Amino acid sequence: MAAPVDFYFDFSSPYGYFAAHRIDAIAKAHGRTVEWHPILLGLVFEVSGGRPLPSIPMKGDYARVDVPRTARFHGIAYNHPVKFPVSGQAACRAFYWMAAQDPLRAQRLALALFHAYFADGRDISSPQVTVDVAAEMGIPGPALADALSDPAVKELPRGATQQAISRGVFGSPHFIVDGEPFWGNDRVDQVERWLASGPF
Amino acid sequence: MAAPVDFYFDFSSPYGYFAAHRIDAIAKAHGRTVEWHPILLGLVFEVSGGRPLPSIPMKGDYARVDVPRTARFHGIAYNHPVKFPVSGQAACRAFYWMAAQDPLRAQRLALALFHAYFADGRDISSPQVTVDVAAEMGIPGPALADALSDPAVKELPRGATQQAISRGVFGSPHFIVDGEPFWGNDRVDQVERWLASGPF
Repeated sequence: MAAPVDFYFDFSSPYGYFAAHRIDAIAKAHGRTVEWHPILLGLVFEVSGGRPLPSIPMKGDYARVDVPRTARFHGIAYNHPVKFPVSGQAACRAFYWMAAQDPLRAQRLALALFHAYFADGRDISSPQVTVDVAAEMGIPGPALADALSDPAVKELPRGATQQAISRGVFGSPHFIVDGEPFWGNDRVDQVERWLASGPF
Repeated sequence: MAAPVDFYFDFSSPYGYFAAHRIDAIAKAHGRTVEWHPILLGLVFEVSGGRPLPSIPMKGDYARVDVPRTARFHGIAYNHPVKFPVSGQAACRAFYWMAAQDPLRAQRLALALFHAYFADGRDISSPQVTVDVAAEMGIPGPALADALSDPAVKELPRGATQQAISRGVFGSPHFIVDGEPFWGNDRVDQVERWLASGPF
C-alpha cells in the first residue's frame, strides 16, 4: 500500500476548507488514503513571519474577492464568516481527541466543523459550538466537552503544529506526498499528477 | 470586440514567466487579446509590504522546489538563474520603448527576455544583455541602447508600476479581466472559465 497523503490545514483557512472537499476523492482514485493534520497557523506564523491574509495590504482586499469566487469555481458552499479569522484551538482539540479513537470519524468531524464555520456561519472557536457540531453527528457531547479542557488534549494541537513546522509546512492547505511538499489549494492539480504518474 | 486581458508581470518572476507562455493562447481561444504590462515588483512591495520569495523563511525553501516542478508541470523550459532575483529595469524600459512602436513586437521581445533569463541563464538586468537579446530578433541595437538611457524612457517602468498599483495589482503574474482581478499563474484556470462563460 502506497503511503498516505499528508494534508495539513487550519480550521480558519478558506483554502484549507476548499482542499478538504477535494483531496480525499483524488487520493482514493489513485489508491491512496489521506491523513488529516489540523494545525494552528498562528504558531506557524511565529516561525515563518507570515500573517493572516485579511491583514495584508492589497492582498487582503484581493482575498475578499478570490475566496468566494474560488468557492464558486469549485462549487463549494461558502458564506464569508462574520468573525474571521478565528482560533482553531477547540476544533483542533476535538479532532485529535476523536482521531485517537477513530481517524475516519475525526475526518468527518473536521469536514462538519469546516462546513459549520464557512457555510453555516457558526463560530467554531467556541468550545460549545464545537461540541454542538460533534453532537449533531452522534459524538457524545459531555465526553467531548470534558476532553476539550483535558490538559493532555490541550497539548495536541501545538504538538501537531510543531511536527508540521519541522516538516517545512507553512501554509494551509499544505500537502506532503512521498516526501514532496505542495502548498495551496492551487497545487491539488500537481498532487493529482504526482499520484497518477509519479514524480515529475 | 471584448476588452483585452491585462497581464501584469515582473521580468524576474518565474511564475510571471510561466503565465507569459500560457495567457495569449487562452485569450485567443475566447476572442480576446492580451495587453502586457511589465512592472517593477520592488516598487509594489514598498506599498504592499511584500518581499522577494527567496528571502521569506520556509516559503523561500519551498519555492526552490515548486518553481522548477511547476515548469515541468507545464512543460516550460526552466533553469534556475544563478543570479536571482534581478532588476527588471532594463527589460521594462526596452519593452515600453518597443511597445510605443509595435505592441506585438514588444510582447515577442518580452518572451525572448524571459526565455533568455529563465532558460538560457543570461542576466537581463544588464542593459547590454537586453540589447543583445533584442538584436537577435532584429531590433536595432544602437537605437535600443540609446533608448535605455533616455530620461523619458527611464520613467516608463515606474509610471506603469504606479498605474498597476492603483488598480490593486500586487503580484506577478496578475490579471485583470473585465475589471476582475486574478492573482497568480494558478488563477489562469479561473481566467479561462471567466473568458469562456463570463462572470461566476
